[in-house]
Amino acid sequence: MAVGQTSFPDMPVIEGIRLGSAKAGIKKPDRRDLVVIEIAEGASVAGTFTRNAFCAAPVLVAREHLAEKTPRYMVINTGNANAGTGEQGLRDARACCMAIRELTGVPYDAVLPFSTGVIGEPLPVNSICFGLPDALANMGDDSVAWQQAAEGILTTDTRTKGAVATCEIGGQSVTLNGIAKGSGMIRPDMATMLAFVATDAAIERSLLESLLRESVARSFNCITVDSDTSTNDACMLIATRRGAAVAGDDEIAAFREALDKVLIDLAQQIIRDGEGATKFVTLEVSQASSRQEALDVAFTVAHSPLVKTALYASDANWGRILAAVGRARVEDFDVARVTIDLDDVRLVEQGGRAESYTEEAGSAIMAREDIVIRIALGRGESAATVWTSDLSHDYVTINADYRS
Amino acid sequence: MAVGQTSFPDMPVIEGIRLGSAKAGIKKPDRRDLVVIEIAEGASVAGTFTRNAFCAAPVLVAREHLAEKTPRYMVINTGNANAGTGEQGLRDARACCMAIRELTGVPYDAVLPFSTGVIGEPLPVNSICFGLPDALANMGDDSVAWQQAAEGILTTDTRTKGAVATCEIGGQSVTLNGIAKGSGMIRPDMATMLAFVATDAAIERSLLESLLRESVARSFNCITVDSDTSTNDACMLIATRRGAAVAGDDEIAAFREALDKVLIDLAQQIIRDGEGATKFVTLEVSQASSRQEALDVAFTVAHSPLVKTALYASDANWGRILAAVGRARVEDFDVARVTIDLDDVRLVEQGGRAESYTEEAGSAIMAREDIVIRIALGRGESAATVWTSDLSHDYVTINADYRS
Repeated sequence: MAVGQTSFPDMPVIEGIRLGSAKAGIKKPDRRDLVVIEIAEGASVAGTFTRNAFCAAPVLVAREHLAEKTPRYMVINTGNANAGTGEQGLRDARACCMAIRELTGVPYDAVLPFSTGVIGEPLPVNSICFGLPDALANMGDDSVAWQQAAEGILTTDTRTKGAVATCEIGGQSVTLNGIAKGSGMIRPDMATMLAFVATDAAIERSLLESLLRESVARSFNCITVDSDTSTNDACMLIATRRGAAVAGDDEIAAFREALDKVLIDLAQQIIRDGEGATKFVTLEVSQASSRQEALDVAFTVAHSPLVKTALYASDANWGRILAAVGRARVEDFDVARVTIDLDDVRLVEQGGRAESYTEEAGSAIMAREDIVIRIALGRGESAATVWTSDLSHDYVTINADYRS
Repeated sequence: MAVGQTSFPDMPVIEGIRLGSAKAGIKKPDRRDLVVIEIAEGASVAGTFTRNAFCAAPVLVAREHLAEKTPRYMVINTGNANAGTGEQGLRDARACCMAIRELTGVPYDAVLPFSTGVIGEPLPVNSICFGLPDALANMGDDSVAWQQAAEGILTTDTRTKGAVATCEIGGQSVTLNGIAKGSGMIRPDMATMLAFVATDAAIERSLLESLLRESVARSFNCITVDSDTSTNDACMLIATRRGAAVAGDDEIAAFREALDKVLIDLAQQIIRDGEGATKFVTLEVSQASSRQEALDVAFTVAHSPLVKTALYASDANWGRILAAVGRARVEDFDVARVTIDLDDVRLVEQGGRAESYTEEAGSAIMAREDIVIRIALGRGESAATVWTSDLSHDYVTINADYRS
């Protein structure tokens, strides 16, 4: 299931980026499961990675290579996460980089590996190596190449996810293209499952890194399907530097806005395609004494199985939202100052049900696919927005059957 | 659903305790939904209550009254939690205490009110007041009275929950009886949904309080069904002081052991009857650098929807356990030192799947109803044990339908 309609956008060419994909038979036959992204010389590349302590072998290798050289290739497989695979996993991730070196002549550590899929199975390196020549042979820079790449990184996703933005930098138009995957094990911490964003803007690496870090904090790090942070999260941002230079405050602000637009769009597409999702829920927490406090409250509500099942049932069971807010460990919490609204319907005020509330009004909102829950804490000026999905029978079915 | 077989134990008389119950029609007709516990003069009473900031009106009133007087009556209703009910809720909880005063002559603040059920509906005070004479008229101290009281506090529970222990204190036998309810919204924080334990031992109040606090930390605070801490949690311990005195170190140790036995038994019964539960899972975390660290890891695994759905599917998907351990925010975590065992089958060592592991061995354990997962962190000497259930279709069904 998935919430609402989306279509893959028409993606413009980003000069300096080409993408190729192949059906390598990694887990299933006749499935696009291998993607190669080629980055022309002279680019800047920034990345954020999972903070899960059991991070996957490709994450360890990608982080190491990114610290050493500016990447020229990214190689991404689905069907196998190469996580929980110990020393053998590291050898396998490096073997994929070596294979790219053999085929293209770039240094081995100018290749970043990424994997997604089942945890704990040995990576089928041979299948990947056999698939790579095909992926390199069909490299392209048009919208079809982007869409095939978006398809080649999916796991339990039911839709490809892409987003485009442009902004004016010193009179020149700059473009950002992004693709992502993710549907379950989604509670990104520093990045999401996998997202690849490219721009033709000319941005120095250190600036690119800080822009990515900030934008990820407002997008991928504000979504959750099931509270389970993946072992393989990675979000990469490539600036090919073929276009306008981003350096002054105004240019940075314009680029930041466009980057936020792409990352938030991709993050929301992941939630709309969350495992078993029937609802797309926006949690807006305001009047918090810090952004962290606002995030803590928002995630406590977003992770509550009772809130999520009530959302699935389209039941305006505001008592469960109130109970979740109350257990969020806010210090010296005066609940009499809290208000909770469902879109424009006031649910809770002064520690209990709002006088104006009617079940009819609440039920009318809950019947929608897109729902906004607003929680004002009455404690300060900070705010945060988190996006989540509901907990449905399909979530249980998908995850009770995933390996079989 | 519920895990394994249980039967309500034969409960001995605790001198100084009588229990009565009635069918007051609070939410459903012909359902035992009102319980009164009478405590003879001279008892000591200790209580622990939820730390949910939106705590229910009866919790606020009970805490207030307990600070003022030694209670003579507890009045408990199911079918309505009287939580999220603001000022009206406080007036309603006090009205129940006033009704007991009218009927028995004890001071109004010698009565403690407790409620459990749906959050946010006004308490039907009239139904409760009409039912109280009936409950007072059928007071008894035998096993039937205890079992009817255990029945009269249930909500979505499918079973009554009772536990008995005895211990020798200075050559005299001392008895503890306990009853509890709870099935969903179970992640107790300072106490569980509702538990009432009585003993004939003679124990001073301050000692009783510290014994209760410590034992709750090892029992009710170590269980979780769905991570949702209730607004109404309360655990009460009554010492009627008709029996042997508990004062010296040896007597305290003997009593502590018996109290642990009752509370852990009740806590485990709640998990076995967890909403939709098909598995009873024990998480033993050892070699942690602190007890809190061990608890953090255990609860992260216990709350993971992906681990819980794998348990439901009887799928030895150890990668999900590993991913949950890895996101538990343990500082400077060397995952190469972690081992994870499923009963006596080693799953994970040196950052990946154990060499000796076979799917057959893992699947054989996962097929059981009772499963032990052992996680050794390789960091220190501290340990913690947490009990939890799985996440099944029935959990979603129960909570998507609860209000209808």
